[in-house]
Amino acid sequence: MTPKITGELLRLLRQTMRNCKYFSEPIQAYIIPSGDAHQSEYIAPCDCRREFICGFNGSAGTAIVTEQHAAMWTDGRYFLQASQQMDNNWTLMKMGLKETPSQEDWLISVLPENSKVGVDPWIIAADQWKNMSKALTSAGHSLVAVQENLIDAVWADRPERPSTQLRTLGLEYTGLSWQDKITTLRAKMTERKITWFVATALDEIAWLFNLRGSDIEYNPVFFAYAIVGLNTIRLFVDLKRLTDPALRDHLQLDSPSKPELSIQTFPYESVYTELQAICTALGPKDKVWICDKASCALTQVIPKAHRTPIPYTPLCLAKAVKNSTEIQGMRMAHIKDAVALCELFAWLEKEIPKGTVTEISAADKAEELRSQQKDFVGLSFPTISSVGPNGAIIHYRPLPETNRTLTMNEVYLIDSGAQYIDGTTDVTRTMHFGTPSAFEKECFTYVLKGHISVSAAVFPNGTKGHLLDSFARAALWESGLDYLHGTGHGVGCFLNVHEGPCGISYKTFADEPLEAGMIVSDEPGYYEDGSFGIRLENVVLVVPAKPKYNYRNRGSLTFDPLTLVPIQVKMMSTELLTQKERDWVNEYHRKCREVVGAELERQGLTLVQTNHFVQEHLV
Amino acid sequence: MTPKITGELLRLLRQTMRNCKYFSEPIQAYIIPSGDAHQSEYIAPCDCRREFICGFNGSAGTAIVTEQHAAMWTDGRYFLQASQQMDNNWTLMKMGLKETPSQEDWLISVLPENSKVGVDPWIIAADQWKNMSKALTSAGHSLVAVQENLIDAVWADRPERPSTQLRTLGLEYTGLSWQDKITTLRAKMTERKITWFVATALDEIAWLFNLRGSDIEYNPVFFAYAIVGLNTIRLFVDLKRLTDPALRDHLQLDSPSKPELSIQTFPYESVYTELQAICTALGPKDKVWICDKASCALTQVIPKAHRTPIPYTPLCLAKAVKNSTEIQGMRMAHIKDAVALCELFAWLEKEIPKGTVTEISAADKAEELRSQQKDFVGLSFPTISSVGPNGAIIHYRPLPETNRTLTMNEVYLIDSGAQYIDGTTDVTRTMHFGTPSAFEKECFTYVLKGHISVSAAVFPNGTKGHLLDSFARAALWESGLDYLHGTGHGVGCFLNVHEGPCGISYKTFADEPLEAGMIVSDEPGYYEDGSFGIRLENVVLVVPAKPKYNYRNRGSLTFDPLTLVPIQVKMMSTELLTQKERDWVNEYHRKCREVVGAELERQGLTLVQTNHFVQEHLV
Repeated sequence: MTPKITGELLRLLRQTMRNCKYFSEPIQAYIIPSGDAHQSEYIAPCDCRREFICGFNGSAGTAIVTEQHAAMWTDGRYFLQASQQMDNNWTLMKMGLKETPSQEDWLISVLPENSKVGVDPWIIAADQWKNMSKALTSAGHSLVAVQENLIDAVWADRPERPSTQLRTLGLEYTGLSWQDKITTLRAKMTERKITWFVATALDEIAWLFNLRGSDIEYNPVFFAYAIVGLNTIRLFVDLKRLTDPALRDHLQLDSPSKPELSIQTFPYESVYTELQAICTALGPKDKVWICDKASCALTQVIPKAHRTPIPYTPLCLAKAVKNSTEIQGMRMAHIKDAVALCELFAWLEKEIPKGTVTEISAADKAEELRSQQKDFVGLSFPTISSVGPNGAIIHYRPLPETNRTLTMNEVYLIDSGAQYIDGTTDVTRTMHFGTPSAFEKECFTYVLKGHISVSAAVFPNGTKGHLLDSFARAALWESGLDYLHGTGHGVGCFLNVHEGPCGISYKTFADEPLEAGMIVSDEPGYYEDGSFGIRLENVVLVVPAKPKYNYRNRGSLTFDPLTLVPIQVKMMSTELLTQKERDWVNEYHRKCREVVGAELERQGLTLVQTNHFVQEHLV
Repeated sequence: MTPKITGELLRLLRQTMRNCKYFSEPIQAYIIPSGDAHQSEYIAPCDCRREFICGFNGSAGTAIVTEQHAAMWTDGRYFLQASQQMDNNWTLMKMGLKETPSQEDWLISVLPENSKVGVDPWIIAADQWKNMSKALTSAGHSLVAVQENLIDAVWADRPERPSTQLRTLGLEYTGLSWQDKITTLRAKMTERKITWFVATALDEIAWLFNLRGSDIEYNPVFFAYAIVGLNTIRLFVDLKRLTDPALRDHLQLDSPSKPELSIQTFPYESVYTELQAICTALGPKDKVWICDKASCALTQVIPKAHRTPIPYTPLCLAKAVKNSTEIQGMRMAHIKDAVALCELFAWLEKEIPKGTVTEISAADKAEELRSQQKDFVGLSFPTISSVGPNGAIIHYRPLPETNRTLTMNEVYLIDSGAQYIDGTTDVTRTMHFGTPSAFEKECFTYVLKGHISVSAAVFPNGTKGHLLDSFARAALWESGLDYLHGTGHGVGCFLNVHEGPCGISYKTFADEPLEAGMIVSDEPGYYEDGSFGIRLENVVLVVPAKPKYNYRNRGSLTFDPLTLVPIQVKMMSTELLTQKERDWVNEYHRKCREVVGAELERQGLTLVQTNHFVQEHLV
């Protein structure tokens, strides 16, 4: 990796910071967050502004440029990578270390008095703006919204914003028409006395209209905004995308069934002026819902007295609770995905002894096998295919310069998933093709115990996911071990592989209680730096449980694994498992054989006899 | 229970609300919170203003009186009691029910436009004031601080504020002189660039100066404030209490060793004017620490630019981490307490068959036996002594009209504790003196499993208590059962039986990470309404654990039970226990026999042979 040369770029950027074309007075600092105007986790190339200015291309990081300094904040996952990708013009700010100042503190320490700090209000979330603005103001500075993005101003060959073809999803995939979704949304608005709802998250808009795009890699979304009133629907999207007759028919653009279900379409860029127009006409009691993580730009259009910020939107919650059609689709997607992975593991068993399989070729093979499955669209995130010490890098992605050969001597970890039209998958398996060491087996077994403890947990309705996180860690903790990431995230249905508002983590973010129909991952791990990584991940569905009693008629929940890929028994120290845990493993493998076996047969594949597919029965 | 007649009282109170002697303009509503000027959990009779005005004497509740209405908010524990203690002038507001409005919403719905709502700023905490004021202001009303308490103005025979004799504690009890505590506090202040610290919590002040009082029943505290600067110490207390030569010597009032350790004493009431004087002289960079739960009155004296509110103070955290002398004292207190309880259980076994033991007489006997132990001071909270259905009332306290006789047919639950000069105890045991039913045993066993799961847990340094809460519930949850209270609270050392900032609860309040030396309770339960209650509580000490590995050198923690009172094996369904759990029970009982047995012998008591003390060994 060679660092990006940024001297000239920084000179140009500092020029724009002094250029009164962009603002009435020059600014002394400019903040470049990662992220787009929709606060997406994955972003399109045209939005990779922080990468453009400093060279660092990790998923998280914020750059700040002043007249004298340039600094970039990122977290522990990326210290090495960032130091390699950035040249000497940049100071790496290692977040989480005691000596590292916060962005606010650093700005206050380096800025001259009464400085103006600029930021693109579309890229910064409203809650982040609030915190930053408060800190700067209290130190005598001010945070300034710079409407034109200054990176774009110096980015000569900036890619265009993607405008891929839109795909309509019928009831057989969604289970619910967009009209019904709008009606449900309006019922919630009426209940809370809300007159307008502004949707800015791309997956929420895709879900609402039963549309999918491919504007962002791995995420089947498209750039759009939506504003829903009690009688009107406004969709903001590149209008060229709306010419396909089937799509126009799907949205009933030319012949709406009812006036209140008539979608008015507007250019993507006009959301600001349209929202302004709406806000000008608000009655004294009118209230507008917007997520507190939406962009500062759109949020501030809404006068404070009319603004009702919410930590997650009603669409976010509705989307998280899958209906029976979506659940059926997710089940099918996971069965097809299991077929592809079982094929991969059989292939690995055969090929590894030849010494020709690398992390990259294994990931490619996984993609090839998945792509042969029905309704495959693409991967749901970059495959983590890692051998030995690379497995201990939690967010590893094999690159030519790090690519390692799979052998009989090292642990192999593959965390991968795909988008199918009927559902999204995300699965991690860790295995050894030779003889694992006693320590590797011991750690694997603790991770397995944690995985089972969550997966088999019974808990009352209304329980938040963070209350289950310790179950995943108890066995590791007992031996003095742990892992430094959460245990699970929400998973979309042919949508983003990471979605809110539920999850399983020791961090008690504003997570909503788990309810039947939600789908989350269960993925504890253990990482021995420089040696190996272990993670065991299933996607699981929240389902009602029927325990012996029913305290206060609250009802109980548990999890049903959607992922049906065998877990390598060779990696287990079975003497560390309780009888209950062995029964769980046996029953899981019985289900894999039954369900995935049937699909393998249907597809005319004969993997049923391979070592990986038929795992030993534990007694 | 007959309700208190409040018509005339309310007439008088409303008269004061219109009386311009107290404010420039009349107020339309007056809020009467429970609590005192130190936001104490337990309060002195002179502070029971909410009880005085409405008759309801539960521990939690807020009364609001307007010109037309009088309403009182309390939670589910007290619905029945409050409805019996209040007359028809009062509306009971059942908190937690959907149809019950919040205090803010109710005020807004009943008040005429532009109303003034009064409250005693000493009784309302700064954070509560902020929320209430915001809600009222946004509806066009205002919250007004009424300096003179209007209840006191109509309370003819209001008791005096207690001013009991102060007790000094030497190093043999505290392990640390008050001078050293001041020095440590100042080091923390200097580290955070704080120039003044205002202490308002009574237990923090008692701890800081190694003094105890008995102003409030069950809590060995005294009414005082303290303001600590980097070179000065101001103590605000009834000066008549400072005449005892030993006490003057302890505080070095007449011959301080160093000027910066010289305590200036002031009358209790002068804290307000002294803090005002301090704040007038603040330099531009001076910062004042005050807890965000301190009274609004004192908080608002500090100009906002100089105020640094904190969720808990450095004294709160320092007090929570017991030093080795305090730990030794707590151990001794728990051994003596165990002797008294074992004597009680032997006595109960003998007396219950005669049919003469009631909930009240058992509680009295427990107090009598405890009072015979060395350095006994008093109870640490009102004894919960409950039989059969009364056991299902979580905060039950036996009264003559509810008093039930202990029999061979019902489950008996006793939750009790004492203050000794060397430590504070809090223990719950549940037992049956005949033959428990299968369901009672089943529930008891789930509770026991939860208790052991927490007590035996190993977890990394830095873990917050709320991450352990689910361990206590997992066995109950698996059978569809649960309990609707937290699992544990911090326990003071010859101080309040409930203290922050750590605890074990599903509620993720701002709890601090557990660290070695902290002492908390572990008390899961199960309550079958109308039938029985089960709770099993030990006080446990956080201690370093030494598991097999030490991930990232973080170190691990576990718990060491300080409570050493046998657990009735007769109540256990031993077939539901794992071997590990049986081993835990056996080892716990071995330790009880060894440690408490030795003390019983030392005291010349011969309980060693009784049924309760020698519990069956589980195989």
